[in-house]
Amino acid sequence: MATIDHLGIAVKSIAAARGFYESLGLSVVREEEVPDEQVRTAMIPVGESRVELLEPTSDDSPVGRFLASRGEGLHHVAFHVDDISGTLEELKAKGVRLVNDDLQIGAGGHLYFFVHPESAGGVLVEICQDSIADV
Amino acid sequence: MATIDHLGIAVKSIAAARGFYESLGLSVVREEEVPDEQVRTAMIPVGESRVELLEPTSDDSPVGRFLASRGEGLHHVAFHVDDISGTLEELKAKGVRLVNDDLQIGAGGHLYFFVHPESAGGVLVEICQDSIADV
Repeated sequence: MATIDHLGIAVKSIAAARGFYESLGLSVVREEEVPDEQVRTAMIPVGESRVELLEPTSDDSPVGRFLASRGEGLHHVAFHVDDISGTLEELKAKGVRLVNDDLQIGAGGHLYFFVHPESAGGVLVEICQDSIADV
Repeated sequence: MATIDHLGIAVKSIAAARGFYESLGLSVVREEEVPDEQVRTAMIPVGESRVELLEPTSDDSPVGRFLASRGEGLHHVAFHVDDISGTLEELKAKGVRLVNDDLQIGAGGHLYFFVHPESAGGVLVEICQDSIADV
């Protein structure tokens, strides 16, 4: 069954943004740099989901360009599904506009793809099979 | 402990937007009109959380104005907390900018308040004590 795996939130500074979540009794459990995407991430578990703060390490990166054009805010919502191949085929068959036509393979064999905001109520949606908590 | 209660997503048409979520194996379990806020809502359970689609019934309403200025997309993220009064005091003490300085009382005695996006990484955050599933 699908769950919300994480909310990716683009921020200028993880150091400045984390305090709000800590005031809710939540904690950053992992902070790391992802050189391929020129981003620093901080993972904050919230129940069965996570908030993932995304701070660009370069202005000329996907998250850096997002911040420059739209400012801080929600970058993407990731839904965890049990059968990612079946979900991909189902969405293709329904004519949903995808960012990736094929499954993408990330760190640790993590499978994912993105749905275009045009087909998902203006929200950039990631569909993933493994939680970011496990990769 | 805090959980993600719901993601409020502003859409032009619930009828058009729900199909994407149904393709993920999710279902609309409640659809209703909230005349006070001039909005129609559709609740879609996702694990312990929910997606709440928000379709304005008037252009001159909060969600109608949001759509006109920003287009479809995430309107707010609601976190459920166990002690909403304590959380409100904690956030005030830390100087977090709030939309509401006092607890708000909604339908069915539902307690909530909103945190200004400026203090929450560009995201409009609702803090609530009862889930929207229960009101």
